[in-house]
Amino acid sequence: MKIYEMKIAPSPRRVRIFLAEKGIEMEYVEVNLQKGEHHSAEFKAMNRFKTVPLLELDDGTFISETVAICRYFEELQPEPRLMGRNPRECGVIEMWNRIIELNWLLPTGMCFQHTTDYFAAFKKQVPEWGELCRDKSRDFFDLLNDHLATQPYIAGEDYSIADITALCTLDFNKVNQLRPQPHQEHLLAWHKRVSSRPSASA
Amino acid sequence: MKIYEMKIAPSPRRVRIFLAEKGIEMEYVEVNLQKGEHHSAEFKAMNRFKTVPLLELDDGTFISETVAICRYFEELQPEPRLMGRNPRECGVIEMWNRIIELNWLLPTGMCFQHTTDYFAAFKKQVPEWGELCRDKSRDFFDLLNDHLATQPYIAGEDYSIADITALCTLDFNKVNQLRPQPHQEHLLAWHKRVSSRPSASA
Repeated sequence: MKIYEMKIAPSPRRVRIFLAEKGIEMEYVEVNLQKGEHHSAEFKAMNRFKTVPLLELDDGTFISETVAICRYFEELQPEPRLMGRNPRECGVIEMWNRIIELNWLLPTGMCFQHTTDYFAAFKKQVPEWGELCRDKSRDFFDLLNDHLATQPYIAGEDYSIADITALCTLDFNKVNQLRPQPHQEHLLAWHKRVSSRPSASA
Repeated sequence: MKIYEMKIAPSPRRVRIFLAEKGIEMEYVEVNLQKGEHHSAEFKAMNRFKTVPLLELDDGTFISETVAICRYFEELQPEPRLMGRNPRECGVIEMWNRIIELNWLLPTGMCFQHTTDYFAAFKKQVPEWGELCRDKSRDFFDLLNDHLATQPYIAGEDYSIADITALCTLDFNKVNQLRPQPHQEHLLAWHKRVSSRPSASA
């Protein structure tokens, strides 16, 4: 079993933190997206969507998509639970993970893709769209600060995959020059709480 | 237990089909998005993100996000399985569900939002971005046709949540004037296969 990834990218980091929380060791293979290594015939044969992270199972199955990879390991080794212990928890955690993805990670990534040179050679850019996405990501810092005023973690009392998604999204916002502001005290306290876990440096 | 939805919208339809496949009866409450009913103080108190579908549990918990609602019911009543029976199946089905969402449903929705009048009063539109999304959605019809040349369902041999997402996305593409083409025979055969299930008219 091995995972193809690019270590500095936010999505592979989500998987590394998830596996570190579960204490699962993994072999990693670096794929350099900036050099276009994901466009090679060899990589496309493994994943026609050309994304990392990409999990290769020992039976030759390939699983792409960050949360699909996490789901595989949650089912393989349930403890410690990062996606819920009962129907209500599973629903609430999946809700928050998706809220963070759709309202924060997605605009963060699109701002980066449409307003910087990083992917300019590979994708058509619409800077006006990228700036709207920057606004949306900035607004989400305040929303999340309000949300964290009454609970220690994104989905409630317990650390979950939603915290991993939010941590990687917040840190990745550096590339868009967006950082937590001093008045966002609940967001800052949460960020310190999740960043101090050993998994954060995985 | 009840679900707030708008019957003609694609995301609520995903949940209705999912519940019909499991044989679960539900009370539905209609929310008219075009009249802006999701912007009311009453609705925002239930869901600050103002989205439908929205599940209200008997204990007062609200769960938004289509797949989070499906996850709740998959955990509550596992059979018939729509999200996988073992780690590998769960991973592969989640991968395909997310591939359909990110590469087809998302551009389909953004094309609709940015190139029609439907949401013009509520959202800033970037028509150039909407047209790029239309191209992306159109391209995906061919990709999915190729994918379905070798297997009957999106995630393999069995019907799953990924087929529900793809069916609702394909049908919703009517609003963007995108339909399957006669040469996309595998896609057309799959569409007939999944549309003929009783759940498709839920």
